[in-house]
Amino acid sequence: MLIAKEARSPPQSPRCISIISVPSIVYETLSVDTKNLRFESRLEVPLSWEDPDLSWNTSVYHHDMVVLPVSKIWTPELHVTNGVQTTIKHSNKDLLVHSNGTIEHMVIMNTVVGCEVNLYNYPFASDFCAIALNVWAISGCGMFLDFGNVSTTSANRGDWLTEEVELNAKGGRDDRNYLWVLLKMRSENPFLSLVLPSILIILADVGSFALPLGESKRIPFKVKLVLSFIMFLNILKDLLPGGGQCSPIIRKHFCFCLVILVLSTLQSMVLTRLAKCGTLWPCSLSKSKDSLLKDTDNEEVSKSDITVIKLKASEEKKKNTALQKVVKFLNKMAAQDQKKARRHRFANKVDLICFCIYLTVLIVYAVVILYFSFGSSCEINHLEFWEY
Amino acid sequence: MLIAKEARSPPQSPRCISIISVPSIVYETLSVDTKNLRFESRLEVPLSWEDPDLSWNTSVYHHDMVVLPVSKIWTPELHVTNGVQTTIKHSNKDLLVHSNGTIEHMVIMNTVVGCEVNLYNYPFASDFCAIALNVWAISGCGMFLDFGNVSTTSANRGDWLTEEVELNAKGGRDDRNYLWVLLKMRSENPFLSLVLPSILIILADVGSFALPLGESKRIPFKVKLVLSFIMFLNILKDLLPGGGQCSPIIRKHFCFCLVILVLSTLQSMVLTRLAKCGTLWPCSLSKSKDSLLKDTDNEEVSKSDITVIKLKASEEKKKNTALQKVVKFLNKMAAQDQKKARRHRFANKVDLICFCIYLTVLIVYAVVILYFSFGSSCEINHLEFWEY
Amino acid sequence: MLIAKEARSPPQSPRCISIISVPSIVYETLSVDTKNLRFESRLEVPLSWEDPDLSWNTSVYHHDMVVLPVSKIWTPELHVTNGVQTTIKHSNKDLLVHSNGTIEHMVIMNTVVGCEVNLYNYPFASDFCAIALNVWAISGCGMFLDFGNVSTTSANRGDWLTEEVELNAKGGRDDRNYLWVLLKMRSENPFLSLVLPSILIILADVGSFALPLGESKRIPFKVKLVLSFIMFLNILKDLLPGGGQCSPIIRKHFCFCLVILVLSTLQSMVLTRLAKCGTLWPCSLSKSKDSLLKDTDNEEVSKSDITVIKLKASEEKKKNTALQKVVKFLNKMAAQDQKKARRHRFANKVDLICFCIYLTVLIVYAVVILYFSFGSSCEINHLEFWEY
Amino acid sequence: MLIAKEARSPPQSPRCISIISVPSIVYETLSVDTKNLRFESRLEVPLSWEDPDLSWNTSVYHHDMVVLPVSKIWTPELHVTNGVQTTIKHSNKDLLVHSNGTIEHMVIMNTVVGCEVNLYNYPFASDFCAIALNVWAISGCGMFLDFGNVSTTSANRGDWLTEEVELNAKGGRDDRNYLWVLLKMRSENPFLSLVLPSILIILADVGSFALPLGESKRIPFKVKLVLSFIMFLNILKDLLPGGGQCSPIIRKHFCFCLVILVLSTLQSMVLTRLAKCGTLWPCSLSKSKDSLLKDTDNEEVSKSDITVIKLKASEEKKKNTALQKVVKFLNKMAAQDQKKARRHRFANKVDLICFCIYLTVLIVYAVVILYFSFGSSCEINHLEFWEY
Amino acid sequence: MLIAKEARSPPQSPRCISIISVPSIVYETLSVDTKNLRFESRLEVPLSWEDPDLSWNTSVYHHDMVVLPVSKIWTPELHVTNGVQTTIKHSNKDLLVHSNGTIEHMVIMNTVVGCEVNLYNYPFASDFCAIALNVWAISGCGMFLDFGNVSTTSANRGDWLTEEVELNAKGGRDDRNYLWVLLKMRSENPFLSLVLPSILIILADVGSFALPLGESKRIPFKVKLVLSFIMFLNILKDLLPGGGQCSPIIRKHFCFCLVILVLSTLQSMVLTRLAKCGTLWPCSLSKSKDSLLKDTDNEEVSKSDITVIKLKASEEKKKNTALQKVVKFLNKMAAQDQKKARRHRFANKVDLICFCIYLTVLIVYAVVILYFSFGSSCEINHLEFWEY
Repeated sequence: MLIAKEARSPPQSPRCISIISVPSIVYETLSVDTKNLRFESRLEVPLSWEDPDLSWNTSVYHHDMVVLPVSKIWTPELHVTNGVQTTIKHSNKDLLVHSNGTIEHMVIMNTVVGCEVNLYNYPFASDFCAIALNVWAISGCGMFLDFGNVSTTSANRGDWLTEEVELNAKGGRDDRNYLWVLLKMRSENPFLSLVLPSILIILADVGSFALPLGESKRIPFKVKLVLSFIMFLNILKDLLPGGGQCSPIIRKHFCFCLVILVLSTLQSMVLTRLAKCGTLWPCSLSKSKDSLLKDTDNEEVSKSDITVIKLKASEEKKKNTALQKVVKFLNKMAAQDQKKARRHRFANKVDLICFCIYLTVLIVYAVVILYFSFGSSCEINHLEFWEY
Repeated sequence: MLIAKEARSPPQSPRCISIISVPSIVYETLSVDTKNLRFESRLEVPLSWEDPDLSWNTSVYHHDMVVLPVSKIWTPELHVTNGVQTTIKHSNKDLLVHSNGTIEHMVIMNTVVGCEVNLYNYPFASDFCAIALNVWAISGCGMFLDFGNVSTTSANRGDWLTEEVELNAKGGRDDRNYLWVLLKMRSENPFLSLVLPSILIILADVGSFALPLGESKRIPFKVKLVLSFIMFLNILKDLLPGGGQCSPIIRKHFCFCLVILVLSTLQSMVLTRLAKCGTLWPCSLSKSKDSLLKDTDNEEVSKSDITVIKLKASEEKKKNTALQKVVKFLNKMAAQDQKKARRHRFANKVDLICFCIYLTVLIVYAVVILYFSFGSSCEINHLEFWEY
Repeated sequence: MLIAKEARSPPQSPRCISIISVPSIVYETLSVDTKNLRFESRLEVPLSWEDPDLSWNTSVYHHDMVVLPVSKIWTPELHVTNGVQTTIKHSNKDLLVHSNGTIEHMVIMNTVVGCEVNLYNYPFASDFCAIALNVWAISGCGMFLDFGNVSTTSANRGDWLTEEVELNAKGGRDDRNYLWVLLKMRSENPFLSLVLPSILIILADVGSFALPLGESKRIPFKVKLVLSFIMFLNILKDLLPGGGQCSPIIRKHFCFCLVILVLSTLQSMVLTRLAKCGTLWPCSLSKSKDSLLKDTDNEEVSKSDITVIKLKASEEKKKNTALQKVVKFLNKMAAQDQKKARRHRFANKVDLICFCIYLTVLIVYAVVILYFSFGSSCEINHLEFWEY
Repeated sequence: MLIAKEARSPPQSPRCISIISVPSIVYETLSVDTKNLRFESRLEVPLSWEDPDLSWNTSVYHHDMVVLPVSKIWTPELHVTNGVQTTIKHSNKDLLVHSNGTIEHMVIMNTVVGCEVNLYNYPFASDFCAIALNVWAISGCGMFLDFGNVSTTSANRGDWLTEEVELNAKGGRDDRNYLWVLLKMRSENPFLSLVLPSILIILADVGSFALPLGESKRIPFKVKLVLSFIMFLNILKDLLPGGGQCSPIIRKHFCFCLVILVLSTLQSMVLTRLAKCGTLWPCSLSKSKDSLLKDTDNEEVSKSDITVIKLKASEEKKKNTALQKVVKFLNKMAAQDQKKARRHRFANKVDLICFCIYLTVLIVYAVVILYFSFGSSCEINHLEFWEY
Repeated sequence: MLIAKEARSPPQSPRCISIISVPSIVYETLSVDTKNLRFESRLEVPLSWEDPDLSWNTSVYHHDMVVLPVSKIWTPELHVTNGVQTTIKHSNKDLLVHSNGTIEHMVIMNTVVGCEVNLYNYPFASDFCAIALNVWAISGCGMFLDFGNVSTTSANRGDWLTEEVELNAKGGRDDRNYLWVLLKMRSENPFLSLVLPSILIILADVGSFALPLGESKRIPFKVKLVLSFIMFLNILKDLLPGGGQCSPIIRKHFCFCLVILVLSTLQSMVLTRLAKCGTLWPCSLSKSKDSLLKDTDNEEVSKSDITVIKLKASEEKKKNTALQKVVKFLNKMAAQDQKKARRHRFANKVDLICFCIYLTVLIVYAVVILYFSFGSSCEINHLEFWEY
């Protein structure tokens, strides 16, 4: 008899409305994809509904409940309104039918929901995501869900903690139920791998002002810093979350870091030239040196003529002259050194000023970035899909 | 009775033509793959059609509408003419049949369409894509779609904004309907990660002309720039969009940057040699220095002979000679310095000229690239698939 | 007759309870995903149960056993309670039915289980994972499993060794069976590719203290080390396991390494300045040099005046004065050298102190990290999914 | 009546042979995987065949054509003999049956074919691929295809242009039909990203010979070049096509580049030593210098003894001696400089010779590589799969 | 009649044993995954068996053979005992039934088999893999395979050549058949991309001993080598095969290379200090220099006092003293140079010894690694899965 019964398997339609009871949902976040702004979750949803056609008289058939294959019976189909991809599997091939027509079943849903997680202050992100869980209902005909409580399992596995899951209904309408999942990022790891190195590199750049300007030390150092920052961004590109409405502020932070590193390198390059030539324009350093040499040369040449003529008389004088020329040479060298030193001093002063400006910019920047990441926030409407 | 009815499920064929009404389409762009020039979208398409075989007399059967399982009823199948991969799912296992035979149903289509997005001016790309949405119809027999309005949801999630979606029909033919989707790239992020670093690196290269030529500073710097540019391209290779008909102009931009960096490095290397040797050919610098040394040596040797002979008489003279030799040595050194300085000055002049040429090339290039990326544009026929 | 029999295929329901015998399970670990904390395994589960409806009288039908297609017969469905994704395939399309109704069958399960492997001391990780293997049973109705022994195959293929597999039941309840799989990591390879290079880089950093401070050697070296460490982290990011509850201590180790490398670079930069200028503040090195030059200059100028006046008389004196000036110049240079040397000595002493501190920190760190990775441990409840 | 008819759906078997007409194929290349040597294509194949069992008398049933669901009718199955993975989908759930039994249908095939594309001269690759398109036929029984024309769509999307598609039959046998697809690579992009940088790096290496040998410039430069080449290969590894029979010659090109860069670096290192020490063996430079110093020292010591003894008498002599010693010191320095210069000149000559050899090797290599990539070619039998 | 016949489709069971004839297998290796130690292959297996229930009397039904849809007929199912994932597809939807009940069919199997390829001497790896191909058979009831010959197609496509495929049966048991596939790696490419660069880098490290010790050349060079090696390993990490039982010896090779590079860098650093200071301990270089300066200073001071007092008398003496002081200065400088040179010579000697040790270690290592990779080998039991 049972077998005959199960042969028929239509959806029931007494008043074109049926109520599906969902006593308890077990929720588990599987993964959060910050690139494409989707998150995947797994729901274990026990369902229970009444199908009067499947009731029987226990006096005729002496069983309180019967196990029937799920393929022979109509089962309600949940669907996720904002789901990008949803797969629903019966947790078992069989379901339990009570004699009064109550059917107990369980489905397991793997659903990928497009959820624009607010990544504005990225490594410290925490946001809500909605999973709109409903059943089919058009024009007054269909089903309604009667929810029980929601619990979560494996809530703190992976990079995102599931802090809380609760059930809401939009506008109180019973066909707009959604799970309101509060996700919180484990900010420790991205902080260590994203924010810390950028701070360290900027710190090293600040420290590089301690390196003397003229020597060939500071510029290679700064260039290496820029290089390592680019490499570091290389690492990031896979870790950085995607754009969306609330583009993470960390992206702008990296941009700023890159620009400030390049600017401080350019500043060092220009000051190196300044220290060398005195001007930024193609320096006439070699010319002055050259004239010095020419003078010495000419003097020497005229002297040597004199020495040939007044060999005897000015023997002593010549000796003196020779010595004087050495002294002169040393003096000229000293004078050049002095000029160089004056330029150096000037460049050092400019460098000090630049350093102060640099520090000020960094401090102002730090304040601004902290204000923007914690003070203000970017609002996202997570139920936008119901607006159309 | 209903159950008996649903047992038969053929496609209806009154005049071999049926009209499917599509009251409203909800469109959502899922992803745009700029590598393979495909884009994925999700359509929620409510369908409604009349199947006279499924009508009933409400006087006999007292229900206005009946819920029937979708598997027992013929449903029209939409297909995307230019789709690479299309999956159509019934939004629900059941559908609603009205007593007059009107059936209401909804399908969810995930379709991947090959759309040659115009990436000519890449980070500022914006283009149309067509989704040719039709039903089956051969030789006069088949179905026709009667479209309503189209709306979009989640239009500004992800990297591509869906600016507008409208429905067109090619050549007014009712079997060539397509959705005309206007996509616009969020150009902010690729600009920051692609264009900005390339500009910064070129800027640093321009700045490196401020570094003195002869010192061992400019070349390592330039080499590092080339190196960082290659590394930067390393980052790019995953971000850069694929080729296709309108290859993005940014690819040529990177090429140009790489070539100009290498050329400016080569120029610096050649000028370094010029500053050192005076010629580009294997320089005879060491020879002249050597001859200087030899002269001094010879003189010294001859002198020492003389000193041995005229030890007593020329005691004073010797002292003078010794001093003179010191002076001579210094003079020779000065002469060599002077020669070096002359070369330096020459090299510096050439360097200045090169710098001017370099700047001119960069400015001309900037104008040309801006003209090409904004002035001209590359046209793509997005409905090419209907040409065959 | 057989064919008629197989036509019916309900689940049997004598007392609403049936016992499924699982004589032996062959277990094989397929992969362990330390990123998402999931592990995949493959189970060959032979099943054997009695279906009284499928028994026959051997006197009527002269076969001891019959081969029936699996699609026509009800088969029990195992399910993995904590499985993220489980696929069950019949090992064959046919199954064997004995005349007494005993059915022999085999299923192959590929199951992905979320298992929060304890990666606290990562390259030496070893942990248990539970695979909760049960059958369907609600409210007293259902099946129970009767397990035999468990064996493993291919236990030491791949990066994770399957050391032991045993069968347990939680709280002695017969509906809470699980396989308790003891996994052990092949620590050799991650040790060589993760821990060894980090030790080598730190070693090279210690060794770099042997490089003289003032010369332009130590800082580029240290910067390169930092750079290579960042690149090395670049390699790591794909190898490093994900977070979870027991975040691997190696992540903190890398963080420490990065910070200590940057600090030791900063220390070298500051000491280089100290060795150059004597103070950390913008050094007055150029000023002192300048004053020296001025003095010499002034003296020289006054002298030359004198020489013009007392040309004859002080011929000898002038010679002496010239020589004395050379000596003075040398002396001043020497004095400056001395000052420089004093600063150098001071900087070297500070450097030595820093080196000692550095070494001490490293040793303390090594002890601490060894204590934390082997001494203490992080406990994970692998049966948490049964808590709700 | 129609419904009854469609109930039966066997394959037809009049003479065990049936002819399937394929009026026109629309071909589209989806992707070419040069790593695994597979290429994916999409075929729209309209099929038309006669099934006498499905004909009807139009006088009895007054329709010329009927739409039947595809699932109730036998349809021929195409298969791709050399396909690795082929999925065939009906373009529609319904098909058209004419009253004379002619059936019109369309299938869409996505087929991945193993095609050993000839990548011998990689960025300029162009080759044929065969798609063996046949139907089932064993031992004289089966179907035969009657092909019409072939057209392509989206032929120039992506990296590979589909230049031509034609239909052939191997050996004229009508069961060995294949599509002969002529693919041509868009060589512009891989040329810019693979060949151009390698040429630029080699060019920079040639240019680095312009850097003076002895200064610490050329070697770091060359090392950086090697480093950047390795990084550049880093980029390549994902772009480079896989091996196969005709391994791309560009792989050997990169190998050659790497070896020549390392060799030229080694040459520079050895010549630097040569310029410094004169020999390749541990140079005795320091010894000669040392001996010079010792001599001066000894003389000085002996002198000072003498000065103590003959203090008064040799006052004048001492002064001379002192001066002479200065001269001697300068001379020795000059002599050493001269020796160094001689070595330098020698090293420079060797360097020039090496440069010439290097240039010659590069030119010969360029000729050889051009000859091999364009002159000779590697033949692949694309129909090998029919050989067994 | 035929249609009626095909309606029934049980497995046949005369003696509970049936023989499946497999006349010829066409084997093709699809891919070898050396990371996870799996390999994928594709088998075209024609099957032929007798089903007495499907025979007919040709006098009654005048066809020698009939084409029947495969879905209506029982077909044997092959399975791969050691397969991780096996998909079996019918090559066609129809099969051929001869009048005597012989059925001809063909299946296409894509099977992924876990095969622990012996990667001990990795780029020259070649090993066997077993594909255990069997049919269902329990307790005496089931099928047996009767194999014909095996041929391969596309044997030399991809990175692994299929050298030979033969059919074996383990222990002669007819239910333990397996294909014994001899795979050989195309060692050319991994040799060029893995082994060659490591040899070149080591070669460059050996060559770097030619660089003078004291100059700031060798250490940056060596550091760059270490850096490039780390980057090179960066490339490798994706290419290097996974662990397993026979971990590839090349992994140890890379480890050795890394350690030796770091050690030789440390050695250079220590020797640089040795050459500078004479000891490894914080060098007292500056002190000695300082004392020199102090002496000169003091002397000079005392002298100047004397000059003030004995101005007239010791005019000549002063001149001498001044000159002597210059000489003294030069002498002291020379003495310091000498000390430096002595240290240099010592460091050079130690360097030479280190170089010899280094060369010896490399040669011994080369011998050992060659011995281990070719001499000894690691044995793997490929039929282990039948041991349980």
